[in-house]
Amino acid sequence: MMTNQATGAANPVLAEFVRGNMVENRHRGAFCVVDQHGEIVAKAGDISALIYPRSAIKSLQALALFQSGAAEMFDLDDKDLALACASHLGEEFHVAGVSRFLEKIGLTAADLECGAHLPTNKAARKALLASGQQPSALHNNCSGKHAGMLAVAKALGVDTKGYIESEHPVQVLVRECVERVLNVQLTPDHCGRDGCSIPTWGAPLINFAQAFAKMSSGSNELPTVYANAGDRLFKAAASNAELVSGTGGFDTDAMNVFAGDLMLKIGAAGVFCGALRGRNWGFALKCDDGNMDAAHAIVAGLLSAIGGNSDEIENVLKTMKVQVSKNWRGFEVGHMQSASEIASYF
Amino acid sequence: MMTNQATGAANPVLAEFVRGNMVENRHRGAFCVVDQHGEIVAKAGDISALIYPRSAIKSLQALALFQSGAAEMFDLDDKDLALACASHLGEEFHVAGVSRFLEKIGLTAADLECGAHLPTNKAARKALLASGQQPSALHNNCSGKHAGMLAVAKALGVDTKGYIESEHPVQVLVRECVERVLNVQLTPDHCGRDGCSIPTWGAPLINFAQAFAKMSSGSNELPTVYANAGDRLFKAAASNAELVSGTGGFDTDAMNVFAGDLMLKIGAAGVFCGALRGRNWGFALKCDDGNMDAAHAIVAGLLSAIGGNSDEIENVLKTMKVQVSKNWRGFEVGHMQSASEIASYF
Repeated sequence: MMTNQATGAANPVLAEFVRGNMVENRHRGAFCVVDQHGEIVAKAGDISALIYPRSAIKSLQALALFQSGAAEMFDLDDKDLALACASHLGEEFHVAGVSRFLEKIGLTAADLECGAHLPTNKAARKALLASGQQPSALHNNCSGKHAGMLAVAKALGVDTKGYIESEHPVQVLVRECVERVLNVQLTPDHCGRDGCSIPTWGAPLINFAQAFAKMSSGSNELPTVYANAGDRLFKAAASNAELVSGTGGFDTDAMNVFAGDLMLKIGAAGVFCGALRGRNWGFALKCDDGNMDAAHAIVAGLLSAIGGNSDEIENVLKTMKVQVSKNWRGFEVGHMQSASEIASYF
Repeated sequence: MMTNQATGAANPVLAEFVRGNMVENRHRGAFCVVDQHGEIVAKAGDISALIYPRSAIKSLQALALFQSGAAEMFDLDDKDLALACASHLGEEFHVAGVSRFLEKIGLTAADLECGAHLPTNKAARKALLASGQQPSALHNNCSGKHAGMLAVAKALGVDTKGYIESEHPVQVLVRECVERVLNVQLTPDHCGRDGCSIPTWGAPLINFAQAFAKMSSGSNELPTVYANAGDRLFKAAASNAELVSGTGGFDTDAMNVFAGDLMLKIGAAGVFCGALRGRNWGFALKCDDGNMDAAHAIVAGLLSAIGGNSDEIENVLKTMKVQVSKNWRGFEVGHMQSASEIASYF
C-alpha cells in the first residue's frame, strides 16, 4: 500500500548546517538508487512514502510530446526538448529558445498559462530590471515545459485554453504517460497544484528512481515509443545542459562535467531525480523539509558516494557538498554539508 | 551532560506544509514551556540538546547594559532598551531610534560593526532603493543591539573597536550575563558567529525557557541587578513592540495583541524565546531544519495550545498557525500549518 506517512520512524539526517563548531540545522530525507532492472543499489529512509516530484519529472511529462505526435508534427529538435525538460534561469538564450519553440507551434507567450516571474539568474534579473521591462511568462523557469504542453494541445487538436487544469486533455495525457513510466496509478487523493499551476501527483520515491532508470535504458518494460522518447529526451537534456538550468546552475554544471553520462533535474521543495546513463541507474531524493540548499548537498553527496568519478567531477560536486555561508560583513559563519553517512548506505 | 545530538530519537513533526491534499514538507523540532520555578509545563522533543539561540536572546545579552552601568550612565529609556532587544525591520522610526541611541552615547553609525543590509520591511526597502541611497549599518536588523553593545564598551571605558569579537571586554561581559541567567557555562566548544558578527553560544533549549521565566518573574535566583533589569527589559520590549520587530512583524503583532502579557522574540534558523508575563512562564523552541515559516507556525501553535486566549488573540495567532501560499498566477497552492499534536504535549 502506498503511504504518505508523517509519524513512524524518521528519515535519517542527510545534510546539516554547521555554524562555528556545532551543527545548527539538520535536514532529513530519503533517497533511492536503482539499477536498470529497478533493483535497489542504495537507499536511505522511507522510499515507499509518497512525494510530490514537482519539476524533477519534466522529462517524464515530456513523453506526451511523443505520445501525442507533437514532437514529429512540429519537428522539435534537441534544444526544444531540453527546454521542455528545463527549470531554466530566465537568461536571454532561454527566452529566445522558448520564443522560437512557440513560433514553431504557431503560438505566442500570451498562450502560456504559467504566470510571470523575474529571471532566476542574477545577472539576467538585474538586466531586466535595469531595462525597465516587466518579466513575462517567457522568464518563468517552466516556460519551456509549458511550450511543450501547448504543442501537445495542438497535436491533439484541442483548445489550448486551460491546458494547466487536470481535466484538460493535455494534463490527462501527461498523467497517463507519467503513470505508465512510474508504473503507479496517480489519483486525485494525492494531488496538488505546482508553482507553474499544472497538477503535481504524489507517488512513492522509489518509483521515480525506477522511472529514471527505465527512461535512461530505453527499458523493454516500456512501450517502444516511450523507450525511444526517454532515450532521446535524456540525451537532449544532457547535451544541452545550459538550457535545462543555466549559467552557474548546478544541474547544468553537473551534467556538463559528467559529459553526457548524467541526466539531473531539480524539483522544488527538495527533490532531485536523475540517471547515470552509462550504468542506466536511476535515482531520486527528497529532503523532508523541502530545503533546496540541503537537497543540493544531498544530491552532490549521493553522486560522490556512487563513486568512480574523475577528480574534475569531484571538484564540481565539492562546491555543492559543502556550501560556505558568509554574513553581512563577509565573515564565513558556517556551511551546509551533506552527511558523511550517505556513503554508508551503499 | 550537555549533548548536541544528531542521531538518537528524532524530534517530532511540529509543522508541515500541505500542498493540495497531501503533506509535502515536514518540520521537526523541540519546544519547552516552564513555570517560574523552572518546572516543565510542556515539552516536545529533545530539550536538553544544545541550540544556538541567535537573536532570540537579545534581551539576555542586554543585561550587560545594567551590569556595566551603561543604562544608568546614558539614561537609557524604554525605547532604547526595546531597540537593544530588537530584530527590527529597518523602517524609518527604527533608524531614527538607533541614531538617537548612538547620539546619546557619543557615537555614530560608523562605529557599528554589524554590517549593512537592506531593510527587511518591504515598503522601507522599496523607499530606500527608490531614493538611490545605499543601506547602512543602521538598517541592519541588529543595529539596536549593537548600539547597546557600544554603550557597554563606553561604560566599561574600553576601546569600542572590535567589540564584536568574543575576547573583547564587551562580549566577555555579555557572555557572563547570559551564563548567569542561563545557569550554564558557555564554552568555545559550542560557539559560532552570528549574522551580525557577534558570537552565538550553544546551550540546552530548556535553559533558554527557564531563563525567560526568570527574567519575567524577577526571580530571586538572580542577582538583584539582573532581576530588576529583566523585568525592565521585558516591559520595555512588550510595551514598545513596534520597535522590537516592526510593521507587520509577528513579534510586534503578537506582543501588541497580548497587551503587555507577552515577551516574544524570534531568532534566526527557526528559534523563538518568550515569556507569558502574567504567569511568569518562559518558553523556547527550535525548528530542527531552521525553517522560519515553520517556526512561526510552531510558536503560534504553542501560544494557542497554552490556552486561555481571547478571540482577538486567537485571530492573530491563526494568521501564523496557517500560512497560505500562492503561486505566480495567484492560485492558492498550499499552506504551512502547525501540527495539531502540539496541544497534546500539554
